[in-house]
Amino acid sequence: MTSKAFALLSGGVDSTTALYIAMEQFAHVEAISIDYGQRHKKEIEYAKKTCAKFNLKHTILPISGIVPKTMLTDTNAQIPNVSYDEIKGVSPTYVPFRNGLMLAALASYASGNLPDDIVEEHALFFGAHAEDAKNWAYPDCTPEWIGAMGNAIFIGSYYRLRLHAPLMWMRKDEIISRGEHAGVDWVNTWSCYAGGEHHCGTCPTCKARKQAFLQADVTDPTVYEN
Amino acid sequence: MTSKAFALLSGGVDSTTALYIAMEQFAHVEAISIDYGQRHKKEIEYAKKTCAKFNLKHTILPISGIVPKTMLTDTNAQIPNVSYDEIKGVSPTYVPFRNGLMLAALASYASGNLPDDIVEEHALFFGAHAEDAKNWAYPDCTPEWIGAMGNAIFIGSYYRLRLHAPLMWMRKDEIISRGEHAGVDWVNTWSCYAGGEHHCGTCPTCKARKQAFLQADVTDPTVYEN
Repeated sequence: MTSKAFALLSGGVDSTTALYIAMEQFAHVEAISIDYGQRHKKEIEYAKKTCAKFNLKHTILPISGIVPKTMLTDTNAQIPNVSYDEIKGVSPTYVPFRNGLMLAALASYASGNLPDDIVEEHALFFGAHAEDAKNWAYPDCTPEWIGAMGNAIFIGSYYRLRLHAPLMWMRKDEIISRGEHAGVDWVNTWSCYAGGEHHCGTCPTCKARKQAFLQADVTDPTVYEN
Repeated sequence: MTSKAFALLSGGVDSTTALYIAMEQFAHVEAISIDYGQRHKKEIEYAKKTCAKFNLKHTILPISGIVPKTMLTDTNAQIPNVSYDEIKGVSPTYVPFRNGLMLAALASYASGNLPDDIVEEHALFFGAHAEDAKNWAYPDCTPEWIGAMGNAIFIGSYYRLRLHAPLMWMRKDEIISRGEHAGVDWVNTWSCYAGGEHHCGTCPTCKARKQAFLQADVTDPTVYEN
């Protein structure tokens, strides 16, 4: 068994949980973080903590310079305080085709780092979930998009790389439950978009994080400023 | 009519022909070249010539640094002299998931450069052709891959960007015929992988170029060293 899993790790709750699931299912796991010029680079520091804990190979791939300026990459922009429930249609924090770029970079990297055998199937892990997809907030998290992109990756890799999105049908609280079951060390995850020392507690992802722990009935070890 | 076409332009025969087709079909056309660390950067100089001729906006997006080293990006590698006909299975010049990266970068760029209306459909133009797809030489040029990636782009752009691959069922000589009909100025195209002052005439793409002009019965204005 030489199958490898390559997990896209932002350092947030979702991708960290997806990484833990990859570790349950694959003996050989690497983590890849993408630097797309995000303002919340702090996430990557948290990704490093999780990788250090398990001694996982961790690679950072830069794609900044090709991603258009949006709320998440423009340091002058004001981030609106809206939660998932308030978003109808395009999220103000949508980075156009960001996940397409990230998965293409991951597929390209993984293709160049596979064992020599041509029989084994390998995996890309991606932490998109149902609330990202809801109301088309992030179209590149929808089941339809994941199916299409998964096909492109499977074909483009000669059927060697399958896209795994184990959270695609889960709400945030289900992810917390699943992650807790997998033993995720939540203090090594970061969600906040504001970029302070602690989680701000008021930005959309902080709100979603707080609420998810409550709904999952899991103790939230996060320090919030508000 | 404010529909825009964004054409991926390498400066080669195929993408230049695809660009001319885009200009036949769309009033507003921009060209985008991708710098993926290719050794034959000369191609981009030829892309610039075509854009200058028509006064097209031309943007170069860098994705080098995330593409694995292969024959086409490693300046120390020897390029094998094999033609399309000799390739069975993976081409020695295959850059893993290169077209996925290029189209993801193009989709992301285009999404950030669309007119404000939300009704019009816009286009990405991509010059993949039937000989690239044949025998799985380049899996990311196959109709199956183009369908999958086109779906991902369509969904990820809220149905605003459709992937056009007008050459996907054409052989090289059919492309030369089609390009000649569209008025392509062939001296502004570059095919050679070797990177000399003139086309070497012996690398796989030079061979394919020569043969295609012959088969199409179109005068080949290219200067070849051999």
